[in-house]
Amino acid sequence: MTTPLHERRIANAIRVLAMDAVQKANSGHPGAPMGMADIAEVVWREFLNHNPTNPQWPNRDRFVLSNGHGSMLHYALLHLTGYDLSLEDLKQFRQLHAKTPGHPEYGYAPGVETTTGPLGQGIANAVGFALAEKTLAAQFNTADFNVVDHFTYCFLGDGCLMEGISHEVCSLAGTLGLGKLIAYYDDNGISIDGEVEAWFSDDTEQRFLAYGWQVIRVDGHDAAAIHQATVDAKAESNKPSLIICKTVIGLGSPNKQGKEDCHGAPLGQDEIALTRQALGWAEAAFDIPADIYAAWDAKEKGKQSEAQWNTLFAQYQASYPSQAEQLLRRLTGDLPADFNDKANAYIAETNEKAETIASRKASQNALQAFGPLLPELLGGSADLAGSNLTLWKGCQSVEADAAGNYVHYGVREFGMTAIANGIALHGGFIPYVATFLMFMEYARNAVRMSALMKQRVIHVYTHDSIGLGEDGPTHQPVEQIASLRGTPNLNTWRPADTVETATAWKSALQRKDGPTALILSRQNLAFQNRDQAQIADIAKGAYILGQEKGELKAIIIATGSEVGLAMDAYAQLEGVRVVSMPCAEIFVQQDPAYREAVLPSHIRARVAIEAAHVDYWWKFVGLDGKVIGMQSYGESAPAKDLYQHFGITTDAVVAAVQELTA
Amino acid sequence: MTTPLHERRIANAIRVLAMDAVQKANSGHPGAPMGMADIAEVVWREFLNHNPTNPQWPNRDRFVLSNGHGSMLHYALLHLTGYDLSLEDLKQFRQLHAKTPGHPEYGYAPGVETTTGPLGQGIANAVGFALAEKTLAAQFNTADFNVVDHFTYCFLGDGCLMEGISHEVCSLAGTLGLGKLIAYYDDNGISIDGEVEAWFSDDTEQRFLAYGWQVIRVDGHDAAAIHQATVDAKAESNKPSLIICKTVIGLGSPNKQGKEDCHGAPLGQDEIALTRQALGWAEAAFDIPADIYAAWDAKEKGKQSEAQWNTLFAQYQASYPSQAEQLLRRLTGDLPADFNDKANAYIAETNEKAETIASRKASQNALQAFGPLLPELLGGSADLAGSNLTLWKGCQSVEADAAGNYVHYGVREFGMTAIANGIALHGGFIPYVATFLMFMEYARNAVRMSALMKQRVIHVYTHDSIGLGEDGPTHQPVEQIASLRGTPNLNTWRPADTVETATAWKSALQRKDGPTALILSRQNLAFQNRDQAQIADIAKGAYILGQEKGELKAIIIATGSEVGLAMDAYAQLEGVRVVSMPCAEIFVQQDPAYREAVLPSHIRARVAIEAAHVDYWWKFVGLDGKVIGMQSYGESAPAKDLYQHFGITTDAVVAAVQELTA
Repeated sequence: MTTPLHERRIANAIRVLAMDAVQKANSGHPGAPMGMADIAEVVWREFLNHNPTNPQWPNRDRFVLSNGHGSMLHYALLHLTGYDLSLEDLKQFRQLHAKTPGHPEYGYAPGVETTTGPLGQGIANAVGFALAEKTLAAQFNTADFNVVDHFTYCFLGDGCLMEGISHEVCSLAGTLGLGKLIAYYDDNGISIDGEVEAWFSDDTEQRFLAYGWQVIRVDGHDAAAIHQATVDAKAESNKPSLIICKTVIGLGSPNKQGKEDCHGAPLGQDEIALTRQALGWAEAAFDIPADIYAAWDAKEKGKQSEAQWNTLFAQYQASYPSQAEQLLRRLTGDLPADFNDKANAYIAETNEKAETIASRKASQNALQAFGPLLPELLGGSADLAGSNLTLWKGCQSVEADAAGNYVHYGVREFGMTAIANGIALHGGFIPYVATFLMFMEYARNAVRMSALMKQRVIHVYTHDSIGLGEDGPTHQPVEQIASLRGTPNLNTWRPADTVETATAWKSALQRKDGPTALILSRQNLAFQNRDQAQIADIAKGAYILGQEKGELKAIIIATGSEVGLAMDAYAQLEGVRVVSMPCAEIFVQQDPAYREAVLPSHIRARVAIEAAHVDYWWKFVGLDGKVIGMQSYGESAPAKDLYQHFGITTDAVVAAVQELTA
Repeated sequence: MTTPLHERRIANAIRVLAMDAVQKANSGHPGAPMGMADIAEVVWREFLNHNPTNPQWPNRDRFVLSNGHGSMLHYALLHLTGYDLSLEDLKQFRQLHAKTPGHPEYGYAPGVETTTGPLGQGIANAVGFALAEKTLAAQFNTADFNVVDHFTYCFLGDGCLMEGISHEVCSLAGTLGLGKLIAYYDDNGISIDGEVEAWFSDDTEQRFLAYGWQVIRVDGHDAAAIHQATVDAKAESNKPSLIICKTVIGLGSPNKQGKEDCHGAPLGQDEIALTRQALGWAEAAFDIPADIYAAWDAKEKGKQSEAQWNTLFAQYQASYPSQAEQLLRRLTGDLPADFNDKANAYIAETNEKAETIASRKASQNALQAFGPLLPELLGGSADLAGSNLTLWKGCQSVEADAAGNYVHYGVREFGMTAIANGIALHGGFIPYVATFLMFMEYARNAVRMSALMKQRVIHVYTHDSIGLGEDGPTHQPVEQIASLRGTPNLNTWRPADTVETATAWKSALQRKDGPTALILSRQNLAFQNRDQAQIADIAKGAYILGQEKGELKAIIIATGSEVGLAMDAYAQLEGVRVVSMPCAEIFVQQDPAYREAVLPSHIRARVAIEAAHVDYWWKFVGLDGKVIGMQSYGESAPAKDLYQHFGITTDAVVAAVQELTA
């Protein structure tokens, strides 16, 4: 521990703010902030290129705290360096409506680049940031101007490294050669259950060498060593760097440092007093001396950095006006001005073509139509490109060409999705990522995180039901669609044919405040005839596809591959309406009059049909209705045999309607 | 490729059966069986200790095909070695009601030890088998008798190694020193998207050395090398072994071998004819020469192996009768004969104590009561033992003592759960595994697999709602309970107090045909008074906790932490019944009369309250009811503030009932 006294004192400001805020909240995690304070002091004061007065500056370095429970580390850094995060905000740590929630939540405190806490996903987001930077740079930088040029710094702990997702994303980061990603591993030997040696004995250096990373080992309390390691990490442009920092958790607490006791609970007033003594910190709680503030203040330096970049960008703009305009547009997240008209034209064209094809194929056709309009698309699949049909003719893999627009993520569903969250957060791209619907489950918490963070990530899920056939129950979704529909702020579309699929893609692309899941079939789906008003109403999430003949007696609600069965039943029945409901979440947000017009509340003879778990549909059919769907696992057999076997048929719909209207 | 001609021909039987069955089904994956045939020939003919005439022999070696899409490899091996799996069964590959589904499904073909297909989970199951073997051996073997003594062999591919779960479980297997686990990596350089180098460039040997494995590299078509590697792997008793087998996918197909084309589609009749020529295989489809059958037949050898073990076990039984009796009981999965009575006595005792404590604490108390009765319990937590409260006084970690009964799984939720599936499948144990309910999502597909395979795995999920407070939205479940309830064959319990928690544990332990999820609170839950009949009715999944005063006008349905709120509302209302529904899945299986008695269908004034997503509850309250719950993400704040903020209160229940009955 050769850190000079002044730097140590500067770092100690983090230690005291963290232990004091956790104590005041009577809840939180002091150990990681106290253990990583010296690392943070070096990275934030000597390297991080950021502007506290403009947290949105596009070319800022990104910082991710993957061990998000150490949130007070991040809040202390933001406060000390000059972000709009006051001492009062720190005192409100973990209170309702505060900018300082228990884990760093995107959109609450300025400077928090992503929400962390679910372990391993922060480093995955960081890989996404670094991939986005590299790709955007390759697309926009010129021989004379590096307008996209920043590093991504990530702190992480034992928990992140035990999680499987760390394998997926660090392996891929190595393969992609993300040289501007620098990760600091808080190697403190402690996790919640105690000393990790008994359950985590990896040689992490060897592991990361196997991934093709540069690995550097340092004493995590030695500022000079951390400095030199960071210099070396920045100098290695072809490999990501892992700096393994041997640290003492809760450093400074005489009785709790180095033990799991300080991980997730306040130190207690007595221990805090002892820690102040040990650190030689005389000031009261939340009292930071002026010289310490001065040492941390990054506002002026940040303004200068941004001003320099602004000058550079103005020159770029003068030399490459159209590139600059496109880059600025993409960074705002706006689509091209003519996108809406062109998308509508494509939907009209699709309607004229009237093709009966799989919705995964309809999705590829939509990508082929919209892709050339949207250079911000950055696609990918978890090793199922040819099955998910996510490649279109303009795709170029980033593995082959850094300026590409498609990532072969490998068999890494969770990593892929969390990387996509990082790409969306970075800006400049609309990521879409794909796998079979069943294996959404591998990625499930990252899907949720995209919705929690309100990010425009498009999740493409094909092979959506027993309709996939022979691969059997391990591959046949049953309860997965309901799980997605229950995820707040996620729109889940299950389109019935080419026109609904094109509309779903348009909706997903135009939505700036959240993600969309597209649920697509392996098998062909019959094209449905619609008039112009019906086509327009698809965007409302549900609409009358089959208008009742005669007085309305019953309603059939269907989605996706079962809309065809519903329409076949409709052809045999009088007084029956078919409602196609490709996106229930959007439908329930429509005004009450529209909802009542589609589903009149007095009609209780309601039958829902979907080749998925029945339980979701009671919401729309009520105690007096019927649902035709799945309540068990699927089987391995040709799709047509399975639909018969599980009773998801036109006959079953007809019988259900007749029973309810008898 | 130095394999002698005869062995090559023996292996070719797998190749032709695989390509012919896939062709007949017009669907499937010939590449992996053809590529791994030579490895399989050595492992199954020279090493695997099994008895085709008794697939349930407890001391058999376990074989897991983690790359489950290569199912025809496994089916061919089972058929050729003499299991009850006929040529006709192979011809029915991927057809409805066949024993040969698209992926190996547990319970369909004899000899399939686990269901595989979801990549990475097979190797996790294999780790579970090896851990179960090691622990069971440590608990039962004596100086003179090794009655538990078998190896676990696992085949896996690139996909398994890219998946994050492979990191979690292989890291833990190394730490635990599972020397009797031997994995064969089908290193063919090809995944669905093509040559893996562009997205998977790990040095896998170095990676596994970092985990503490023995790693051996061989030519996967050289029988002698595979033989020697296996000998070396068996000889290393302190480390698991990975044998990296360089192979050619689809070996034998002149035009498709070594290419992704042969991975997941039939070769086609022309290519099959060319392959027959290339292999020198003259026989027609599904025609295996007698000498080849003879070379594969393992029935006699298997009978002898089992007979030897039976002799050994009889001697053990004579010397250690009580241990032998316990081992036999545990292998059947039966609980001790007096368990039911003792559990009921504990429930009665809990009722008398009338404690108001967190249900996670009530769960620990139940474990403390039942643990001493059940030596088959093998617990664990993903680094949250002190938060999940899954340790009881009789716990001894397997890390410290191989005969222990508790695994510190580390921060590895998915790996832990899939390992538990392997432990349950092995027999001799009832595994319970724990994490926060939110991080069930990391393990989500393994939870589903436990239900699909009907395994008694007890999933303990604490911190079940906004009631966990300050950790905030990343940690507060909303849609997770509904996702579990939608999982076919999973029982999801959310108990309201100590008595319901004890009943839930009893139900989970006694259930032999499937898993149970226990959803538990961080915060204290008020004890509820019940009479004996009510206590007995808890086991029916739902029951009348608050009998209406006067004529029944409305029903409040509640679970877990919200039952207390419902009972507070009940105290203020006339004609209102409170139904506690700790396990909806069990309730809906009760006879119609009971269900009608609890929830009379004519009562439509129904209010459900649960601090989880509202959508699940429309099933029980219908279009005329109300649900008080969550529709958005949570926030970081003390729990009591959050309940107010989200309107989950007694006042809200009272108001909802009044509105419906006005």
